[in-house]
Amino acid sequence: MIRDGWTLAAPLDLGPQVPAIFAIGNGFIGIRAETGTDDLPRVYLNGVYDRVPIDYHEGAHGLPRGGDVRLSVADGTKIAIGIDGTPIAIDAPLELDMKRGVLRQTVRHGDATITLTRFASMAEQALAGCVVDVVAGARAIDLTIGGGIEAPRLATPPADIDDPRITQAMANPWHEVAVPADALSCRADRLERSGFTVAVARSTPLQVRIPAGEARRIPVLTAYVAERDTPPDELAARARALVGTATAAGADALLAEQEQAWSAIWAGTRFALADPVAEGALRHGLFQIAQAVRRDGHGSIAAKGQTGEGYEGHIFWDAETYALPFLIHTQPAMARAALAWRVAGLDAARQNARDLGHETGAVMPWRTIGGRECSSYFLAGSAQYHINADVAHALRLYVESTGDLSILREGGAELLAETARIWLATGWHDPARGDAFVINRVTGPDEYTALVDNNLYTNLMAAEHMRYAASLEQRHGIDPGLSPAERQAMLRAADTIFLPFDEARQVFAQDDAFFGKQPWPISDTPTDKFPLLLHYHPLHIYRHCVCKQADAVLAVATLPHRFAPDMRKRMLDVYEALTVHDSTLSASSFAAAAALAGETGRAARYWTDTVLTDLLNLHANTAHGLHMAALGGGWNALAFGFAGLSTLDGALAFSPRAHPVAGDYELGVRFRGRAVTLTVANGKARYAVEGEPLALTHWGETVTVGATPVTLDLRA
Amino acid sequence: MIRDGWTLAAPLDLGPQVPAIFAIGNGFIGIRAETGTDDLPRVYLNGVYDRVPIDYHEGAHGLPRGGDVRLSVADGTKIAIGIDGTPIAIDAPLELDMKRGVLRQTVRHGDATITLTRFASMAEQALAGCVVDVVAGARAIDLTIGGGIEAPRLATPPADIDDPRITQAMANPWHEVAVPADALSCRADRLERSGFTVAVARSTPLQVRIPAGEARRIPVLTAYVAERDTPPDELAARARALVGTATAAGADALLAEQEQAWSAIWAGTRFALADPVAEGALRHGLFQIAQAVRRDGHGSIAAKGQTGEGYEGHIFWDAETYALPFLIHTQPAMARAALAWRVAGLDAARQNARDLGHETGAVMPWRTIGGRECSSYFLAGSAQYHINADVAHALRLYVESTGDLSILREGGAELLAETARIWLATGWHDPARGDAFVINRVTGPDEYTALVDNNLYTNLMAAEHMRYAASLEQRHGIDPGLSPAERQAMLRAADTIFLPFDEARQVFAQDDAFFGKQPWPISDTPTDKFPLLLHYHPLHIYRHCVCKQADAVLAVATLPHRFAPDMRKRMLDVYEALTVHDSTLSASSFAAAAALAGETGRAARYWTDTVLTDLLNLHANTAHGLHMAALGGGWNALAFGFAGLSTLDGALAFSPRAHPVAGDYELGVRFRGRAVTLTVANGKARYAVEGEPLALTHWGETVTVGATPVTLDLRA
Repeated sequence: MIRDGWTLAAPLDLGPQVPAIFAIGNGFIGIRAETGTDDLPRVYLNGVYDRVPIDYHEGAHGLPRGGDVRLSVADGTKIAIGIDGTPIAIDAPLELDMKRGVLRQTVRHGDATITLTRFASMAEQALAGCVVDVVAGARAIDLTIGGGIEAPRLATPPADIDDPRITQAMANPWHEVAVPADALSCRADRLERSGFTVAVARSTPLQVRIPAGEARRIPVLTAYVAERDTPPDELAARARALVGTATAAGADALLAEQEQAWSAIWAGTRFALADPVAEGALRHGLFQIAQAVRRDGHGSIAAKGQTGEGYEGHIFWDAETYALPFLIHTQPAMARAALAWRVAGLDAARQNARDLGHETGAVMPWRTIGGRECSSYFLAGSAQYHINADVAHALRLYVESTGDLSILREGGAELLAETARIWLATGWHDPARGDAFVINRVTGPDEYTALVDNNLYTNLMAAEHMRYAASLEQRHGIDPGLSPAERQAMLRAADTIFLPFDEARQVFAQDDAFFGKQPWPISDTPTDKFPLLLHYHPLHIYRHCVCKQADAVLAVATLPHRFAPDMRKRMLDVYEALTVHDSTLSASSFAAAAALAGETGRAARYWTDTVLTDLLNLHANTAHGLHMAALGGGWNALAFGFAGLSTLDGALAFSPRAHPVAGDYELGVRFRGRAVTLTVANGKARYAVEGEPLALTHWGETVTVGATPVTLDLRA
Repeated sequence: MIRDGWTLAAPLDLGPQVPAIFAIGNGFIGIRAETGTDDLPRVYLNGVYDRVPIDYHEGAHGLPRGGDVRLSVADGTKIAIGIDGTPIAIDAPLELDMKRGVLRQTVRHGDATITLTRFASMAEQALAGCVVDVVAGARAIDLTIGGGIEAPRLATPPADIDDPRITQAMANPWHEVAVPADALSCRADRLERSGFTVAVARSTPLQVRIPAGEARRIPVLTAYVAERDTPPDELAARARALVGTATAAGADALLAEQEQAWSAIWAGTRFALADPVAEGALRHGLFQIAQAVRRDGHGSIAAKGQTGEGYEGHIFWDAETYALPFLIHTQPAMARAALAWRVAGLDAARQNARDLGHETGAVMPWRTIGGRECSSYFLAGSAQYHINADVAHALRLYVESTGDLSILREGGAELLAETARIWLATGWHDPARGDAFVINRVTGPDEYTALVDNNLYTNLMAAEHMRYAASLEQRHGIDPGLSPAERQAMLRAADTIFLPFDEARQVFAQDDAFFGKQPWPISDTPTDKFPLLLHYHPLHIYRHCVCKQADAVLAVATLPHRFAPDMRKRMLDVYEALTVHDSTLSASSFAAAAALAGETGRAARYWTDTVLTDLLNLHANTAHGLHMAALGGGWNALAFGFAGLSTLDGALAFSPRAHPVAGDYELGVRFRGRAVTLTVANGKARYAVEGEPLALTHWGETVTVGATPVTLDLRA
């Protein structure tokens, strides 16, 4: 499938993963590839969702009574081609040109050639299109281009409703609203409960005669405008105007504009791997994240982007922890937009906190689109308090690596303070543990344990969060609204944070009780019983010492400075034996942690699993959408693991190692306005900086890199 | 309300608790008192239920997909009286005559007197009735008796759906099925999903002229027949026949039969308290339990009996732990029937175990009617594994106190073995704890903690359960089907059971992590924030060190031999300070434990709370039905607490203490075919035995009591 570092290609019938892998998008519109056999909906709009009631057979106080669900919208992107009155099957292989941001197919009919070049415009988020190039052969042909606008329909959920990762069955809530007739095709549909209206306009069908030997280039354009509280007529008029303007600009201009936009993206996201398959795989992931992130602050990155039905289109901590680090270090403007969406959700997060019993502070939702908690299963939902710290961590990474303090002034500092307050409300100083700060009854990222005390990852991240929030005024002169007493309490809590430790194994424990549970007989479990969550009652899983993804290892990957190198290695060994990797989040953490432990061979194997998660459909559910976290995890493991990148404290540091699978590699990161390039080749690390000279550290040693690149030795 | 030890009386408008307190029943039919203002349904049939689907917004493997719901049935018990064409308001106070098992009301109209004597026949469980006695005054009157059969209707659940204790709103699933017309009123209604058909027949309306000064006694009779897989016509015919036979027998015979039946019950359930209010309160509880227990093995005791909507009519462990001990020791036949219902549920319990991931064994459901787990909130549902041990404990109590081994032969032994196997499947020998047997991730009876490790109550009860199951063959010569290896494993697990202990407080901890949680600021919590479960998110509650009912104290009350007297006192002191008593199960455990610790004053206060739970509507939800566990808890605290009764090992033991509130007391228990009476009066304990002489122990000292009573000193 990976043709080279820039191109993927595959026949339509390769498997159910094809529509997602070859999806195109622009952060707002997402369009799954048309294969002719896939009967799932194709078009999603980031941030456009319905509100559905959540009922409980046995309810409890504070549980969410409604949820957001992103629903597929009217499909105005299908293309029907006819030649001389015969419909042409568009069954040629797909070719995803990631350099130019287009998806191509070329079909032949007799000696005529039809090439479709689809794109979701990176220049105008409301616009998607398909440029149809037709070359007539020895005789003239009559070309028709059709395909109207299909009414919104819902995916039929599979009969197996035990899979919590899939949207439940519901009645189709879309209803069409009338809009004035016009030359262009247009329709508008409304979701009453959430108030969204989606207007879609599209080029009208056409018929054209192409003389023998001649070529025609015809753009077929579709525009989506979705808003609340705007009259449908106005939305429809805007959609039509967009199609009109783009049509007037012409296909050449549109494709040039698209190529230019992607060229700018790749100028920021610079990397190269010696192995072209590895490069193509990693690039696909980064390409898809750039296609998934909404860039105007009205959305972020859904767990599956706009590439499928999975997880109701919700945004999870995956966005901050797995996808944003890549964007922060290569596309800071995109990252800023996603973080701005979090900041805009602060009031909703405050309300989440009230629901959970906290009189102050804010709790970031486990899953949401509009900002309110949408999880009905709080054990693996709201109990994951770590998301507060994950959001804070991403915000810190952004601020410290870009130096852009404006987001702090525009609500970010307040968010850091409000979310940090929750730690003081959740944890306490336990006198029986020497007044250490303990955090009870939370669920860590690893969902094969639930309601635990002192989850290592949570406690470490909470301490970082509190320390950062408390230091904000001193560090950046921005008052986050914390009282001196609060700052003092946060610093004391951070300083005395309890970290569970297992003496027998000489590793930090995933939580207080983790090693007291009976080990899961992993090797005796039949392969068809994985993932465990689809075959065992949650209680049965929670009772055993088994990790879906080992968040203790994620702690090593995220905060390596808290673990000495030999500890990293022990952690890796101990937790690897207990982890079943049922989560696609797992491999990238293990890859990064292994690299940070100097186990580059092991790291490379996990890295390969991560970057091939969707391309090889390793978890057999890519049909529901791409796994954005795994895609971002490939970059994370390369950058934070192999390259040892760190920017958390406002200083740029690397501890690069070789990558046995990727081979020699180049990694570009943006740091405080500069473009920094690390090249690892032939046992050496070469640093180049565009812009002001920069003092960075290489394996702890400070070097100043200016106009002339600096080459240093790698370590094993 | 308590007129004396045998009679309750109250005006109709005393409060919303009246219909439940004055409910009449016979173990099958339950009828709430008619007050004229209460708009809740009135008639319930024990063991007759619908099956409803349970949907989850986020599901998981093994969760129940359907539940049982007991629905009110057609009401054929309402009485309309008219005199000379004028409807008579039946608004006189209610008088519950517990000696005779009837509910009376006397209304006057001019100089005529109308007395209604309602009853649910203890002789024929399908029959309920009302004997109408009318005495004309100085002039003749025209009497009409009407009131037909009202179609089944459902209660309207309150708008506050956060209360998990109330049945959720649903469409009325009853549908009438035609039955042949007949002289008697009759109708039949069916529940398609569960297959139950309920036929009800009733005396026809009548009109009669009563000459001046004369009296008439007219029985108005209603019969309920409910079955699955029986044609409605047949059920209707049986219901009509029952009404016909009873009508033919006449009112006098019916009331005599009722009095006789209750006289037999009270001959078994013998007790007397010096304080008449205390006696009346306790008697009401025992009266209601006897009215609630189904006696033919097709049902047990629902949490609210047949007195209201609460808890969907489900049967919980309350039956075995709170209501059955009383029946076992005073009405062994009733107890046997309820236990037989559990035994009949063994196959369903096996399926519950499979759902939970256990390849062998059986898991008794947390809440059910038909035997399958019906809880959709497994944290406080299926996670309560202790119910296996609770059922085993009740079965053991029954076998050891009655000597009736037949229930063991008829499936009871198999049940003990299958439920005991679950402990081996759930716990394990943790090498880090010296190979102690630990049980992880269960929820104890106290629902303000969830998913804990080594819940003290669970572990102690599991050990008792395993030891008893493993000893069954040796003890009673009955092979429960355990292999020698299983027996050995159970004995080892029981011998090495881990009991969490808190060194600082010198008490057993409720679970491993209990005292590591932040104390709930009980005294700073506004009174309108109780019960906490209605005002705080479960996570917020779980995170704090707070007890709804303190199951560690229940462990003391249930297995006092595991706690030295000074330990009982420390446990009481420590847990009392942490308990908010939001459960009606709480007071009776504290009462028993306090009595067992020698704290009789404290015990008496808790005992009063228990026996007045419903009479004073202490938890403000008696309108939803009486709390059977609290009612039974009154007897438990008196017998196991104050009297120090123990029969668990097949020997009868007492350690009686004075009861400061009840005053001198007499307690009758059945033990191995004998009627044993303990009388505590004037600082002495007097033992009398009817039947074979019996060796019993008084404060550890063995005395043989024969025809002549034996009087011994009490202890403080």
